[in-house]
Amino acid sequence: MTIVIKGNFIDTPSPEKFRVREEGYLVIEKGKVRGYRDTPPRDTGEGQFFDYGDKLIIPSFCDMHLHGPQFLQRGLGMDRELIGWLNDYTFPREARYGDPAYARDAYEVFADSLYQAGSLRSCVFGTVHRKGTVILAEEMEKRGLAACVGKVNMDSNAPDYIRETGEESLRETVKFLDDMAGFSRIMPIITPRFVPSCSGELLGKLGDLAKERDLPVQSHLCETVQEVAWVKELFPEGESYSHVYDKAGLLREGKTLMAHGIYMSEDDLDRIKRTGTALVHCPDSNLNLASGIMDTSGLMDGGINLALGSDVGGGHELPMNRVIISAVQSSKTRRHFLGRGRELSHEEAFYLATRGGLSIWDNTGCFDEGCLFDALVIDDRMPHREELTLTDRLYRYLYTSSGGDQITARFLEGRRI
Amino acid sequence: MTIVIKGNFIDTPSPEKFRVREEGYLVIEKGKVRGYRDTPPRDTGEGQFFDYGDKLIIPSFCDMHLHGPQFLQRGLGMDRELIGWLNDYTFPREARYGDPAYARDAYEVFADSLYQAGSLRSCVFGTVHRKGTVILAEEMEKRGLAACVGKVNMDSNAPDYIRETGEESLRETVKFLDDMAGFSRIMPIITPRFVPSCSGELLGKLGDLAKERDLPVQSHLCETVQEVAWVKELFPEGESYSHVYDKAGLLREGKTLMAHGIYMSEDDLDRIKRTGTALVHCPDSNLNLASGIMDTSGLMDGGINLALGSDVGGGHELPMNRVIISAVQSSKTRRHFLGRGRELSHEEAFYLATRGGLSIWDNTGCFDEGCLFDALVIDDRMPHREELTLTDRLYRYLYTSSGGDQITARFLEGRRI
Repeated sequence: MTIVIKGNFIDTPSPEKFRVREEGYLVIEKGKVRGYRDTPPRDTGEGQFFDYGDKLIIPSFCDMHLHGPQFLQRGLGMDRELIGWLNDYTFPREARYGDPAYARDAYEVFADSLYQAGSLRSCVFGTVHRKGTVILAEEMEKRGLAACVGKVNMDSNAPDYIRETGEESLRETVKFLDDMAGFSRIMPIITPRFVPSCSGELLGKLGDLAKERDLPVQSHLCETVQEVAWVKELFPEGESYSHVYDKAGLLREGKTLMAHGIYMSEDDLDRIKRTGTALVHCPDSNLNLASGIMDTSGLMDGGINLALGSDVGGGHELPMNRVIISAVQSSKTRRHFLGRGRELSHEEAFYLATRGGLSIWDNTGCFDEGCLFDALVIDDRMPHREELTLTDRLYRYLYTSSGGDQITARFLEGRRI
Repeated sequence: MTIVIKGNFIDTPSPEKFRVREEGYLVIEKGKVRGYRDTPPRDTGEGQFFDYGDKLIIPSFCDMHLHGPQFLQRGLGMDRELIGWLNDYTFPREARYGDPAYARDAYEVFADSLYQAGSLRSCVFGTVHRKGTVILAEEMEKRGLAACVGKVNMDSNAPDYIRETGEESLRETVKFLDDMAGFSRIMPIITPRFVPSCSGELLGKLGDLAKERDLPVQSHLCETVQEVAWVKELFPEGESYSHVYDKAGLLREGKTLMAHGIYMSEDDLDRIKRTGTALVHCPDSNLNLASGIMDTSGLMDGGINLALGSDVGGGHELPMNRVIISAVQSSKTRRHFLGRGRELSHEEAFYLATRGGLSIWDNTGCFDEGCLFDALVIDDRMPHREELTLTDRLYRYLYTSSGGDQITARFLEGRRI
């Protein structure tokens, strides 16, 4: 079926600049963009026509790193740094997700909020609990979202109440993959929490499983100075933090996402680049936990595949328009107050939030011909709006929207959800 | 008339810690707190009883520095620094406020948003236009807000279309004071834009006027390196930036507010402390325009009177709960990444946002006996809320609320507005 959409289209096919097309028509066929017209297409057969008048239409957001069970704990323990925050706030709360009814109540609100915020694609951590994580996937599927959802693996350095044995962790992961077989847009993803939470043996077996079933992988990498030193202590023979993942087969060509990547050695940089692993920048979380500021411009300019994540609950902002602004602000801090790197432009940050790290899915994140049509319609009515260019309207939306408040329609793969 | 309010009260009589009182009763008489009880007071005469059950009740916010006419331009020109942003974005837009109908449309939305966000007291810049600024005051008065509102003075270094002559600037300011005579909770405030926008003569006359009518004063101070150098060039005989204001009689004992104060000389620090001038920290604006990071902890510890401001539109966040988080994040950046100062605690930032710089008004900003009762009622319903302490509920509200979305009632001087 063909659909035609009228509106003001803004996207970033490349990170250098916004492509702005005023009052045009986008033709969508089988969920993909077939073409763009300045004038109404003559015949769309039995298709549908959506007239969004003078509204803005942008690609929907992809949130490439966040934790579903931490949604309700946003803002708690923000006087801690990473390890203290995990032990004092996060692990005790994640333990509660062993109760399916508890998980259901929490994940309903989480999935609603993700839908509202327009993060139509995401890569989400659950907890160690298989059933709870299936519930997370169910709630996201119900709302029509596309996502990778992972049951977390932890057999080391965690409190008893949340630690699995290696055997149990693997067995439950295999069962989780079976549970996920019937889903349409929610895919499973291999999710070791981070190196300190997993034995070398478990990491190796997860790597084998990922290869066997050709699955994507997500985890954390080089988030804090303390954590990097801890990994060195736990795996003294490793050449770097990422070497531990690599050895286990967890840096899968274009299929792995690693959150943070702030304290990267030369070996880390080589390995991440060579394997096409995407690093996920989570600026809010990195500020809240005083972890550090990622060298976004240096990494991008060095050809490393970057993405953007809310990292809820270390990050407190779910809406990706807010994460875009945090990323720009963080790069300004690094440039102007630390004297390092260059500013990330708004265009680059927008690109990261719509197209970054998307090799996991088919071509999407912009309105080029052949791309899946994933989009948000923005109603930014305000007095004197006529004075603003379309780009300035986009800026104002990015800076001032609290998330869903200005989104009036959401499309995923050409269907309104 | 007596009113009794039931709920969970949290406030910061001093910046060190939250005072948390669970399910108690506050008795209000003639707009002021008369006392707190653990049990329902027996007889309130003909008074009213408000039962807010298990909701949170906190002091309302005071936004001590922002620009009404810049509300609609939030997010624009954020690739500029201060002077470029003023010339390219701000001055051309402020010029439009010479048209009363234009101003009315814009200020209606601004005043609604301030009310929604719970910033029930504020110090607001208008534009150079007297009529437009009276309209700003009218719209704020209509919504029951308390504020100082200033007609801006500019007779130097500004484009023709927005520059006044010194004579005109003074005459219109005197007329503005007359126009403001009939307002109940909106007071006029003397508002030279900043030193570079005013001749020494105009500054002196504004100082005389402030003294004659015993008026508060607001302006900008030491925001960027470039601006400080410019002031030195314009007033080479001045011992410091603040000396220029001081000489003009504009640092009025406990009645002056100066935004920013990032690049302060020893002379500036002495003068600001000696005159009891409040410095207004505007963390978002300072990041957006890459101005710098204020030494909040050093200034507080040094006995300088601090306040907090959204600085809309250099800042893009109007709600003060968001400005509190920005202030904490900025101090973390300064402490952990620049190695300077200490972290501002959440308690301190909350104190600044509720009690900071309030010497302009009678005693308010907490629920001590004798304080004016200015308060917000917060409905933070979420699954599993029962697991959270009242303080953690406050943290979650501060970090996650987009502004008005969780505020269900607003009280100013004991009256629901």
